[in-house]
Amino acid sequence: MAKRAPVQSANAKVNQKEEEIFAQAVRIFKQKGYHATSVREIAAAVGLQKGSLYHYLSGKEDLLFRIFDRGSGALTQRLEEILASDAAPTEKLQSAIQAHLAELTNQLDIFTVYLSERRALSGRHYAKVRAEGERHAELLEKIIREGIKRGAFRQVDSKMAAHAVLGMCNWLYQWYDPDGRLKPEEIASIFSDLVIGGLEQ
Amino acid sequence: MAKRAPVQSANAKVNQKEEEIFAQAVRIFKQKGYHATSVREIAAAVGLQKGSLYHYLSGKEDLLFRIFDRGSGALTQRLEEILASDAAPTEKLQSAIQAHLAELTNQLDIFTVYLSERRALSGRHYAKVRAEGERHAELLEKIIREGIKRGAFRQVDSKMAAHAVLGMCNWLYQWYDPDGRLKPEEIASIFSDLVIGGLEQ
Repeated sequence: MAKRAPVQSANAKVNQKEEEIFAQAVRIFKQKGYHATSVREIAAAVGLQKGSLYHYLSGKEDLLFRIFDRGSGALTQRLEEILASDAAPTEKLQSAIQAHLAELTNQLDIFTVYLSERRALSGRHYAKVRAEGERHAELLEKIIREGIKRGAFRQVDSKMAAHAVLGMCNWLYQWYDPDGRLKPEEIASIFSDLVIGGLEQ
Repeated sequence: MAKRAPVQSANAKVNQKEEEIFAQAVRIFKQKGYHATSVREIAAAVGLQKGSLYHYLSGKEDLLFRIFDRGSGALTQRLEEILASDAAPTEKLQSAIQAHLAELTNQLDIFTVYLSERRALSGRHYAKVRAEGERHAELLEKIIREGIKRGAFRQVDSKMAAHAVLGMCNWLYQWYDPDGRLKPEEIASIFSDLVIGGLEQ
């Protein structure tokens, strides 16, 4: 144990610095956009030289990809749990909309960068991020299909209904104000009533 | 008449060149993103030197703003016409969703640049583009409020319902495929059924 302590401490320090870089990058990307932000600027915001920043990441795109991975991964997991649960289809859809708006508003800066800058990625990074977005649509579609199968929802094009729900939820990043009139759970409840009213037999 | 002919012809030539610049800029902005595109590149795509391009526009931001203006203005006008018409609230909302998806899919490249790059604008340009987006939400909200007042729709938070409709429509730019299974008017009809089912008493 005594031997491992310094290593853990060094790792903890690296992790802490990484978190700091991550937070500053999200802030600057959101404010100025990805392309207009330089690696030098991110380095300066965390008190490092440009060269030293490369100890923590392989480049600006690596950083953007990690932002996306964080923004998107937690929601995928929640949607998978909801789909696998024993709840009724209507409750599952309510929970999915609640989870989506909770994740998005909890990490509004990350989602803003995620939703507005993903086209800036190239090659396999873009493919992975795109696949994650499609996975969200797919999980919502499965919840809706289950509702149709169990007679809770009318016969509807489940893929289009899933895109509709995903769109109304994701679009929050364009207009949601943390100091606004309604809390995320109140907005989610209004959206749920609208969608479920439209889907029920 | 004979005297004015050459002037008109010169204007027509300028307009034609402007259209060409406009189309190429939309194409390159969509492909590479606004910040990654240089004025030199747009000039080259229309066979001009960078300096000559400035005869037609005052800069890259001017071009981006004009793209937004075109993408957004036509929809505002359609929504205003629909709101002012004599149709029943349900029909107005159907028409609004149809108009939104028709405009968006007809000018998919322009809308993609409009919806993903508007943060790249600064100052009064950004304010104008933002106001136009808010105007769309406002017009939808008025249609919904009229429906509530006339007893066609249930008591609902009309502002949130408008954001929901706007979100599901705008989000198409992320997933719509012109060669896909459904035509824009079919998607609009599915969305309308969903929303109107959720709004009706």
